Amino acid sequence: MSDSPRWEQSPFMKSARREPTPCTPVWLMRQAGRYLPEYRSLRRQVPFLQLCKTPSLCAEVMVRTVERLGVDAAIVFSDLLVILEPMGFPVEYTAGEGPIFPHPICTAQDVDRLRELESVAELEFVLEAVRLTRSALPGHIPLIGFAGAPFTLASYLIEGQGRSNFHRTKWLMYSDPGAWQALMDRLARAVGRFLNAQIQAGAQAVQLFDTWAGCLGPEDYRRYVLPFSRAAIQAVDPAAPLIHFTTGNPALLPLVREAGGQVIGVDWRVRLDQSWRQIGYDRAIQGNLDPAVLLTNPDLIRRRVQEILQQAGNRPGHIFNLGHGVLPETPVENVLALVDAVHQLSARSSSPI
Amino acid sequence: MSDSPRWEQSPFMKSARREPTPCTPVWLMRQAGRYLPEYRSLRRQVPFLQLCKTPSLCAEVMVRTVERLGVDAAIVFSDLLVILEPMGFPVEYTAGEGPIFPHPICTAQDVDRLRELESVAELEFVLEAVRLTRSALPGHIPLIGFAGAPFTLASYLIEGQGRSNFHRTKWLMYSDPGAWQALMDRLARAVGRFLNAQIQAGAQAVQLFDTWAGCLGPEDYRRYVLPFSRAAIQAVDPAAPLIHFTTGNPALLPLVREAGGQVIGVDWRVRLDQSWRQIGYDRAIQGNLDPAVLLTNPDLIRRRVQEILQQAGNRPGHIFNLGHGVLPETPVENVLALVDAVHQLSARSSSPI
Repeated sequence: MSDSPRWEQSPFMKSARREPTPCTPVWLMRQAGRYLPEYRSLRRQVPFLQLCKTPSLCAEVMVRTVERLGVDAAIVFSDLLVILEPMGFPVEYTAGEGPIFPHPICTAQDVDRLRELESVAELEFVLEAVRLTRSALPGHIPLIGFAGAPFTLASYLIEGQGRSNFHRTKWLMYSDPGAWQALMDRLARAVGRFLNAQIQAGAQAVQLFDTWAGCLGPEDYRRYVLPFSRAAIQAVDPAAPLIHFTTGNPALLPLVREAGGQVIGVDWRVRLDQSWRQIGYDRAIQGNLDPAVLLTNPDLIRRRVQEILQQAGNRPGHIFNLGHGVLPETPVENVLALVDAVHQLSARSSSPI
Repeated sequence: MSDSPRWEQSPFMKSARREPTPCTPVWLMRQAGRYLPEYRSLRRQVPFLQLCKTPSLCAEVMVRTVERLGVDAAIVFSDLLVILEPMGFPVEYTAGEGPIFPHPICTAQDVDRLRELESVAELEFVLEAVRLTRSALPGHIPLIGFAGAPFTLASYLIEGQGRSNFHRTKWLMYSDPGAWQALMDRLARAVGRFLNAQIQAGAQAVQLFDTWAGCLGPEDYRRYVLPFSRAAIQAVDPAAPLIHFTTGNPALLPLVREAGGQVIGVDWRVRLDQSWRQIGYDRAIQGNLDPAVLLTNPDLIRRRVQEILQQAGNRPGHIFNLGHGVLPETPVENVLALVDAVHQLSARSSSPI
């Protein structure tokens, strides 16, 4: 038996390093979420933010989900926006409305209200969730930490909410490049610190979510986003592979790659083969089934999984995932069918059984 | 003087035919809209649908807008969804909520409730708006007719509204290809008939709006959308150039071109030069400023116009437009600055003044 922990040789970690695997690893964004009856039942007793701040529950939710689904990786149960509370912007969750910042950033002056994240002490509940999840997970299952990318966090701070047309964000970005830089620099430093703290607490890999960057064109991304995402990524311990995920605009992918990440996460708006070619085969790729396919039936899911696996070919370095999170109305049996299909259809006949 | 009407030699029509022009033509989606004080004032007296159904007002609104802005083309004042009323789905507008279908298509059986558009008689108000606008416009200004593309109309019918994640639409599309085909065939025939009727009533060009197609990946677009958009486009009189506009996913552009259209409309998510190369130089291109840029100031607008014109190069066949409609909060002076900037910065020094 080797000295390295068992997760180091897991299919997920091998694929992140572009090493061959017996079958394609799969995990799902929002794999522990509202589509699961046991999660809904827990949430009837515990509000979302309270759940995020109770490390033992976070660990329990994720460990049970990984067991139930048979996925190849866990992700710490948390929320993109908790990082903003110690920076002076506590998020509120209203039923059915999603996250709200009651006092968003409206002017360049408001940027000063965002404090530097000097320490991760106030995010201890996330780090404890990482530790408890890690220690409760089977040794062969890697744990992923995560943070929102600077642009996505800035959008929430400026729009005050998630579902948006991003006009206010673009207005500030275009009108006051100095204020924008101050805002994005502060967020980039915070994101780097937070991801490193999660790695130190026991995460084997991290994912940077730039959920809203797809509202921008390539030139805007290059000017206003790329330098800050790159700074955040370069601050992260390279021993833990970083998955750089964006959604909403395939034309950004070469620039997302330029910003960094050993693994590039892509959504369903582009073919996996085409996007991998554009990104470059010196990076691993994660994706990219449309979550809406999981609303249908196991036969269709299997056909769609097969198409994506065929596009990935026999090239090492593909981590199967959806192009975005599991939808709340998804039948659990369809998620199970997906995980089975990925494992079965990707099994390499040349590998020892 | 030649026998052909003056609009035939307008910069807009020449660019649609990829002929050289003295300067780049510009018009704006939603150029007659809520950002104009006189339009808001009219709308305080006349509800939106009533305005759409009053041809004299439609003509007045558009002719005044074209005069005020100095744009190079008019578009008939109407709405994407009026075509659905004679097909059995009357739209309702609620303040602030946008269009609503109170009884959307929920099941495959519901598709039967969508009637064939046997005649355009019930859309006479649109055709009369075309005639009145054409006769009131200066002879050198071409008039554009329009319709929603089959997928975008289907999405509204199934989601019951515009702002959506399109999960219901995808569910029907994936789960019941037969019902989907019946729905899309019926819509494609209706769209073709309606666009031809607008051309016969006096429109010099038409635009097909596939506003929501960007929620799909390339394989879904190819299977479930392309054949029906192509059928609609092939039914249209080729003497009137057709602008095929989509938004939200640059990876679809080669397929949008395949579906047809002498002019391909692109949004700001992709560079104009890159998208034109992908589409092919045997098509004209329309686009592609981010409407959010119009919220800023004339200096920035001018710089952004310059960047897009540089990307278009000296190749004939570029029609300047936004990547989507003018935003309601846009200052009118910024729209005027945009139109001026396009005309000034694109003026070919070699052309007679």
